[in-house]
Parts: sequence; structure tokens; C-alpha cells
Amino acid sequence: MNTRLYNARIMSMADGSKVTDGEIWIENDRISYVGNAAAADDISKKGIKFDIQKDCRGNVLMPSFKNAHTHSAMTGMRSYADDMPLWDWLSTKIFPLEAKLTNEDVYEFSKLAMLEYLAGGVTAVFDMYQAPDETARACREMGIRFVGCCDINKFGPDFSEVEKRYKRLNTDDGFSKYFVGFHAEYTCTKELLKDLSDLAAQLGSPVFTHNSETRKEVDECIERHGMTPTQLFESLDMFRNGGGGYHCVYLTDEDIEVFKKHDLTIVTNPGSNTKLASGIAPITKYLDNGINIAIGTDGPSSNNSLDMFREMFLVTGLAKLHDMDAAAAVPSKVLEMATVNGSRCMGLQDSDVLAPGKKADIIMIDMHQPNMQPINNIADNIVYSGSRANVIMTMCDGVIRYENGEFLGDVDAEKIYDTANRIMNKYRE
Amino acid sequence: MNTRLYNARIMSMADGSKVTDGEIWIENDRISYVGNAAAADDISKKGIKFDIQKDCRGNVLMPSFKNAHTHSAMTGMRSYADDMPLWDWLSTKIFPLEAKLTNEDVYEFSKLAMLEYLAGGVTAVFDMYQAPDETARACREMGIRFVGCCDINKFGPDFSEVEKRYKRLNTDDGFSKYFVGFHAEYTCTKELLKDLSDLAAQLGSPVFTHNSETRKEVDECIERHGMTPTQLFESLDMFRNGGGGYHCVYLTDEDIEVFKKHDLTIVTNPGSNTKLASGIAPITKYLDNGINIAIGTDGPSSNNSLDMFREMFLVTGLAKLHDMDAAAAVPSKVLEMATVNGSRCMGLQDSDVLAPGKKADIIMIDMHQPNMQPINNIADNIVYSGSRANVIMTMCDGVIRYENGEFLGDVDAEKIYDTANRIMNKYRE
Repeated sequence: MNTRLYNARIMSMADGSKVTDGEIWIENDRISYVGNAAAADDISKKGIKFDIQKDCRGNVLMPSFKNAHTHSAMTGMRSYADDMPLWDWLSTKIFPLEAKLTNEDVYEFSKLAMLEYLAGGVTAVFDMYQAPDETARACREMGIRFVGCCDINKFGPDFSEVEKRYKRLNTDDGFSKYFVGFHAEYTCTKELLKDLSDLAAQLGSPVFTHNSETRKEVDECIERHGMTPTQLFESLDMFRNGGGGYHCVYLTDEDIEVFKKHDLTIVTNPGSNTKLASGIAPITKYLDNGINIAIGTDGPSSNNSLDMFREMFLVTGLAKLHDMDAAAAVPSKVLEMATVNGSRCMGLQDSDVLAPGKKADIIMIDMHQPNMQPINNIADNIVYSGSRANVIMTMCDGVIRYENGEFLGDVDAEKIYDTANRIMNKYRE
Repeated sequence: MNTRLYNARIMSMADGSKVTDGEIWIENDRISYVGNAAAADDISKKGIKFDIQKDCRGNVLMPSFKNAHTHSAMTGMRSYADDMPLWDWLSTKIFPLEAKLTNEDVYEFSKLAMLEYLAGGVTAVFDMYQAPDETARACREMGIRFVGCCDINKFGPDFSEVEKRYKRLNTDDGFSKYFVGFHAEYTCTKELLKDLSDLAAQLGSPVFTHNSETRKEVDECIERHGMTPTQLFESLDMFRNGGGGYHCVYLTDEDIEVFKKHDLTIVTNPGSNTKLASGIAPITKYLDNGINIAIGTDGPSSNNSLDMFREMFLVTGLAKLHDMDAAAAVPSKVLEMATVNGSRCMGLQDSDVLAPGKKADIIMIDMHQPNMQPINNIADNIVYSGSRANVIMTMCDGVIRYENGEFLGDVDAEKIYDTANRIMNKYRE
């Protein structure tokens, strides 16, 4: 399948958030041309036959969003338990319900999340949850790249499962990866963490986990171990192959040095940190330290949305409030976090920017909607006034999966909604 | 024109955020029935002939949003000058450009804002700007209720203009109101404020203004006058007929007492306060004091969006962060702010809730989109995961103005976009 997207504004993210007029050619799963408008002559000279030629009407083509921390299957629990702090919410509401979920439930809830990802321009998710094979299955069926992170903790799964998953879920088709990881310091014993560190070294895997999400988490870790979570992980030599942390609201200066030493990624989750009242991450300090910062929505029962536009606004907005500086975390940096930096931490450098040879993971942003007009500055429009309503095409691996409000292929959205409601009706107290 | 909206979930806001299944009848500009599904027999017995009968497919009908503080015409300057603190932004970028704007420019920029309001479910705006007749004209043409607030300050307009506008713009067709007001303490002399207080008393008008938006504003007012802006206004007996303040990020306990004494409204603007790094308003404290709180987007060059969904999330999210309490500012309260409380401060009690006899200012929220599923809690879905993409119908005064992405009537959105770009191309440095 060869596709030509012409008459576009292109924000390739290969050169910050610079926008140029032109067109993009896609041959099967990869981009073959990004540049000036091509004459019909030039195209025929190159001998390419396009199956699809789309007039983009001056709309913006940009790399798709990479959601660098989520628990997709928690979409079933959206609005099930709100207005509670993290630990109460987990222990009294979420953990008891999760204990009831079957693998099939995880698959069905994940499919609901995939609909929201596609409608919001997300083509790759860094997912941590039980029954990861089910979320990977939903991803593959819906045409979204799955990057799983192990959620092991002292309650499960068996340690032997980590390596099995790692081998099973790291495939070579570009649609499934798996990294060593664990839920969080506060749900793991030191022995388990030591074993994971050794396993990661043996497998050559980076390691990711929830890290310093709340002040309580950090304080209790210091009480238990005499050091912060990051320092504990470092003392166990956890990051020999890199990795990073989700949330990272309360990293100390010493923690930041560990992140720099191992080139770790901070995945920021401002929507979740806001809704759970966890706090505001010091994003400017992390930027000033040159750390790779990516953006995740977290799961939709703590957010409750999988909307990268809201996250982008919150990244810059909360940085401005944190620093009391309206110049903090400018849009070009935020757009890098939501695209290129996410790809980097997820091992998806093959689909980070729009350039020849890269995987065709592309979205189209509708400029023919009032919130994107006038066009004084496109990057600012996207970050400060953009909405998922502006995503009118989502392409992954060269295949258009979502266009103008419709899910393409044999996706039956209504059936997915009905199934999710049926499952929740069964479990809801 | 009589309309029947059936097979709906109705969040009338007459009883908190409670949702009931049923239908709504609209006869001309007013609601005539809200209740259980009616049989065809019942309808024919009542002798009503419906021009339009719409199957709502289980979608939510709720009162439209009231945007209680905005500068609609600033939509032309969206993304024109970002990442700057309030005063620099105003004095070096916005004021110089505004000085160039013609009345026709204000009209055209206002029309662009109206498109965004309609697409986002807003049917009434509390607008402060130069050339208010132009914004009122744009509102009337586009079917949105205009409530103007005078923007007078020491640079203009002539004092005599306030009363003239008041008489000209307070019409009895329900589409235009005007209140006495002024830009802010820091742009007005004490003499001007005294004159405005007397005029408001004479006209029987409430008074609104930007109040305590930044710490600097409050500190400098105390330096100049030995008291906070609110106390200064109170010393001038400004609120004899009520009114309120926009922003109100830094009210003192004494200020709050003034607000309670005169039953004033706090219009909170969290998007603008975030983007300009002005600070976080203590919403819980205001709620605990029983003050009427409404929500405004502020102008789109300081936000940069006119999206009440983003504002609603920010109201609750920032309250949670401010208090470090995940239970702060729950969705039912936030929904009241965005609808009923806005109506109250704008003098639009006639269109506050969905009930027989009320004006038919109604929106439909699409539940057939992934971000609104599953349906564990509708109020939570709307506030925590809702998006303007979910607004699929906006009705004002019984007339459907926007439906499924299209602007109805003879609205030419592309022409409005082109005109706004042409104007900005002329003025942009």
C-alpha cells in the first residue's frame, strides 16, 4: 500500500517544531519522501503508483504521540472511584476490583483504550498491567505498538514469569516489546528488586517503575531503607541497561544525578498527579539537567482520560505554576516530549520523526476548526489550544486506522463499549 | 419551531448532577417538558406538532455552558505572544496590537470566537472588550447570548460612553445585556472608580472587574491605597447592586467577607492563571464560604483556548493540587459552576437548568465516543475525561446552531478563518 499525503503543513519534529509546506510519501510501512510539493511528472518518473492520494488541505502532519506510561486495561474502571488519594484509591477500590478481572476482561478493557488512543493520535503505548499478553493482543489487533513493562510486585506474578514474558513479548514485527520492570518500591521486597536487577542485566533490558510519585512514597522508602527509591535502585545496580521512572514528582538532586549517569527517562504524568493530588513535578529542573522527559497519561481510572493534548497543556501549565514563570516548558519542548522523547524511552527510534526510512506513524491535525485559527504559531496552537477533536487521521505502520471520527478496518466500537459496560456491571459493588 | 429530543440521558442540573432517562420538548425558545419517555399517544393528546424529533441514542442532554469571563475578540491574537507573564504580555504585545484594531476587526475576531463557543457547547459569554457593540453584533448573528462588562480604564473610553453603552446594549430580546465594570484597579484612578460606583448605583447595575489576578496586582494596590483591590472597591461602595471579580486568585479573608456581604461572584479562570503563571485560586476555601463560583476561559491569547472542558478539569485539578487533597472540588460542584452559577452571575437565570418554562439552551454530549465509556459515572466522565469533541449539538433559544461538527444557518466558517488570518497578517510584526 503506497500513500501520498500532499498539500500539507509538515511538523516533522526532526528540526524542533519547525513547520514547512510540502508532502509525504509512504511506501508500505515506511516513509519514502518528506519535502516540497512534487509535480505529477516527478512522481511518474520515480515509477511509484500510489494506492491512496490525499489532499491534506493545509492541515498539519506530525509524528503520532507516544503514550509513555499507561495502564490501558484500567479504562474499564474510568470514573469508577474518583476523588481519593493514591493509596486509599488503590487499596480500597482498585486492587479489590483488579483481583476479579479475567484475562478476557483485560483484553476487552484494553480494546476500549485502543479506541481512545487512535482517536487521540496515539500509536504506541508503554503499558504496565497484569496479563500483558492480553493488552499486546488488543494492540496488535487495533494496529497500535505495544511496549510492555513488567508490573511484578510481592503479590505476583511468579518471578519466573518475568523472563518468560520478556521472551514471549519481544517480537520482531515492531508491534510488541517488553522490558523488565516492577510496580514500585513500596510493593516490592528488597530481595525481589535484587533478583530483578540481576535478571535485567542478564537479559540486557532497561528497567522502569513507578518512582517518587508521592511524598509519602519517598518518605516511607527512606524510613525502610535509609534512602530514596532512586538511590535504593541504584544501590542494587538496577539501571545497568538504562530505563527510567514513571511520575518522578519528588526526585532529589542526588536522584537526578542517578538519572543523568544512566541516561534514564523521566515519564511525567501530570493529569494523574493532578487528579490524585500527588503534586507537581519540577519539569524545568529536569529539562535544565538535560534528562530525557517523555509524557504518559497514566491509567484512565486515575486521570481519567487518555488524551495527550490535555497532558501537553498540563506539562507546560504546571511547570509555569511550579516555577511561577510563564516562560517555563515552551511548546517545542513539550511536543518533543510527546513524540521523539517517548519513542526514545520505548525503543521506538524507528518511528520518532517524519523522515525517509522511518516507520510511517503519522497523524493529521485539522486546522479547519475554530480552536486552531488564526494560524499565528502552529506549535503554540497545538499545545495551548489543541484538542483530540483536531486529530482527523491516525496512521500506524503505514495503515490508516482512524479518520474523521471513524475507526477503520473491522473495528466495532459500539460492541467494545457494550462489552466494557457489561463487565463493569458484573463487578461493580 | 417545536423540537422533541427523546431517548436521552438528562442531566438537568436542577438536582445537582443527577442523571435520569427521558426526553425534552422545546416549544419555540422554551422548554415545555422534561421527563419520562412519552408515548406517541400522549403527545398527540396534547396537540403538539413537532417540527424536529431527534433520537438522542442515550446521549446526555445538559444545560449549555456559560463562559463567565472572556475577551472574545482576542481570539485573533491566539498564539500571537506566548510564554510571557501578564504585565509584559499586556504592555509589550497585546496593548500595542489592540491599539491598531478597528471595530470591524473586533467583529471579525469575535465571530471566530463564536465558532469555538458553539463547537464547545457555550451559548452565553460574559465578555469584556473594546467596541462591545461589535462583539454583541457577532453574538446575535451567531445565536449566542452576549453579556458585556464595561472595560473602562484611564486610557479610555470616555466616561460618558459607559452609560450610553449600558442603555444601548441592555436589550429585551434576551441576547444582549451590559453591566457596569472596569478593566482593573491598576489601570484606573481612584476618581474614575468613584465615578463608576456612583453610576452603578444610579443605573442599578452590578459591577465586575479583574480582581486580585496576580500577587503583584494586590501588593501594588496595597502600596498605592493601603488596602487590597476588594477593600478599595468596598470603600468606594462599589457593590451596592452586587457583581463580582474575575480571576480572584489572591483574595484575603477580609476580601472574602466583602464577597459574602454583597453576594458577589468569583469567576475563576484556571487556564489563564496557569498559562500566565499567575497562581492557583483557593477554590475550596471559596466553596466552603458559600460564594457563587462561575468559570471563564479568559481571552484566547492568554489561555489559548475557549474550551470549558479544559477549564472544568483545571478547576478541580488545581483545587486538588492547591489543597493536596484528591477529594477537593468534586465534579457535581464543578458542573454547577460551569452552568447554573455562570447563569446566576450573568443575569441569565432564565436559562440555567433544564426545566419547563426555561429557555432552551441545551447541549448534547456524545456518549458514543471512547473517552465517555464505560458509563460508571456520567458527571465524572464529563469533568474528568470529557472533551469538546463530545459536544455534538448546541442549541440556544430553541435553535440548533451546531451539530455533528457543522455550523448551521448561513455560517461560513472558512471565510471567518480567512478573514482573521488576513487581519493578523496585516498587523503582525
